[in-house]
Amino acid sequence: MENIKFENGTLYLLDQTLLPNEEKYITPKTKEDYFYAIKTLQVRGAPAIGIFAAYAMALVEGDIKELKAYLDSARPTAVNLSWATARMLDAYKQGKNLIVEAIAIHNEDKEMCKKISEYGLSLLHNGDGILTHCNAGALATSQYGTGLGPLLLGKEKGYNFKVFTDETRPLLQGARLTSYELEKAGIDVTLICDNMASLVMKQGKINAVLVGADRIAANGDTANKIGTSGAAILAKHYGIPFYVLAPYSTIDFNCKSGEDIIIEERNGDEIKSLFFEKPTALNETKCFNPAFDVTDNELITAIITEKGIIKQPLKEGLEKLYD
Amino acid sequence: MENIKFENGTLYLLDQTLLPNEEKYITPKTKEDYFYAIKTLQVRGAPAIGIFAAYAMALVEGDIKELKAYLDSARPTAVNLSWATARMLDAYKQGKNLIVEAIAIHNEDKEMCKKISEYGLSLLHNGDGILTHCNAGALATSQYGTGLGPLLLGKEKGYNFKVFTDETRPLLQGARLTSYELEKAGIDVTLICDNMASLVMKQGKINAVLVGADRIAANGDTANKIGTSGAAILAKHYGIPFYVLAPYSTIDFNCKSGEDIIIEERNGDEIKSLFFEKPTALNETKCFNPAFDVTDNELITAIITEKGIIKQPLKEGLEKLYD
Repeated sequence: MENIKFENGTLYLLDQTLLPNEEKYITPKTKEDYFYAIKTLQVRGAPAIGIFAAYAMALVEGDIKELKAYLDSARPTAVNLSWATARMLDAYKQGKNLIVEAIAIHNEDKEMCKKISEYGLSLLHNGDGILTHCNAGALATSQYGTGLGPLLLGKEKGYNFKVFTDETRPLLQGARLTSYELEKAGIDVTLICDNMASLVMKQGKINAVLVGADRIAANGDTANKIGTSGAAILAKHYGIPFYVLAPYSTIDFNCKSGEDIIIEERNGDEIKSLFFEKPTALNETKCFNPAFDVTDNELITAIITEKGIIKQPLKEGLEKLYD
Repeated sequence: MENIKFENGTLYLLDQTLLPNEEKYITPKTKEDYFYAIKTLQVRGAPAIGIFAAYAMALVEGDIKELKAYLDSARPTAVNLSWATARMLDAYKQGKNLIVEAIAIHNEDKEMCKKISEYGLSLLHNGDGILTHCNAGALATSQYGTGLGPLLLGKEKGYNFKVFTDETRPLLQGARLTSYELEKAGIDVTLICDNMASLVMKQGKINAVLVGADRIAANGDTANKIGTSGAAILAKHYGIPFYVLAPYSTIDFNCKSGEDIIIEERNGDEIKSLFFEKPTALNETKCFNPAFDVTDNELITAIITEKGIIKQPLKEGLEKLYD
């Protein structure tokens, strides 16, 4: 599974908006093509967006500063996007070969994901039952991914995992992306609704929970897709280890705790009307649609980055890691 | 909100399959009309099905024994259905007026729901934030309902609750029925996805969780709609009381504990294909689709029936109640 491929001078992007029903690579050419792909989520996942934008900076002709500003405006809140375009602009100023630089960004991400995957895999055992939430796999990054990395790497090494993936309401990334990605990798995967995780855990089918992270505070509190904190509380109740896997860059040392993390709220109508022919509730019924939640550090067994495994107490472990 | 109304010799049924988009009462006449309504879930909820079938036994002409067998076959596992038709058959044999008997069954259910609602309301405070899961309201019973009863009765008495209702995947009864029912009653209701309950609790918005029950074991372990046990674990984590509200007849004293309760498993394809134009996962991807889960007695603050409030230890409380 490669979502972004650079072959014979052409960039191929797996259009994630068509998954899981259609597997189609698009080949953006103009700056408008790249902008559109980022804007409409044909490419999603912070690392993947950064890689994609780096190739855009290398491949599209024209004023490079204008190009950076234009691409950045496609998703203004995506930190990895502006980070990657800034690095490409620096490379340009230093007279570096931009294609080489974009490939370097891509390879560095692969290397990072592989390290996270190796550390994560060292915590698992052949035959383990695993619960995942949302999508933190190769589709969101490059090869392997973060949260799903140990599963994809483990498969290559002959491990047999039995994976349960939450569908992850409201946008269903667990169904549309994670179950697709694991199925394609030949991993034993079973799709469940988010509210079935408690039963699956109680039945003894889960030995570890693996999730990614959008932002990790200095004390280990972790913001991730809505529902993650619930999965962590269930895991604690049933005595199941709960692992957060993410790049070191996800740790925000300026953010003391989860209380400093603002939860993005999406349009409530999404819950009752996004996928259905008819709305599932009355027009006048209010919906609350938070995109993320914060999992308290005490609920997290370990945080795994490319720099290693941080166990409890997380705050002290993260402090040592800070460089 | 009355789902079943008997007025001027005509029975009116609110067709639940059309909710929340269309509010239409149907008037079944023939035995086939009644059978179809039960079979296709135009009427659902154990007490409501029983009441509806009782009226059918009183209003449809023909061989009453055959009619009972025919109606019972519409949903063979619905205990309340065969209980109600058996009672009507007995009444017939005793030469009772069948319409009076059906109305009695209807009124007894209303009385039972009202008692449950009163006991439940005594545990709540004006202004409380409430979380509900699935639908245990008037639509599933008669007036008031069980799990939602304290909210509907409280509204009549001038209480202002702030209710959050889980949409309740996969069949979305919380969205389609509970949010509809509370909205129609003028109660402040907010719809959330099941996986958002943890965040809402953490934000301090929930003072109590109210759910119904499909079956309560002698030790208090409670089978209810899938996701209930997860909500109970979250409530315990956040120190929020968790209340089960159900008729005394829901308690199965022959069932020692939740381990004796078999969990019905529905077709897995329902998860990925029931409501969506395109499936949310690949055809070959397995789904696990349990309909219920069991909430351990230790997670339940109190069980409320028409006979009163049973607090911890539940097993001893239930034993005392047994008559």
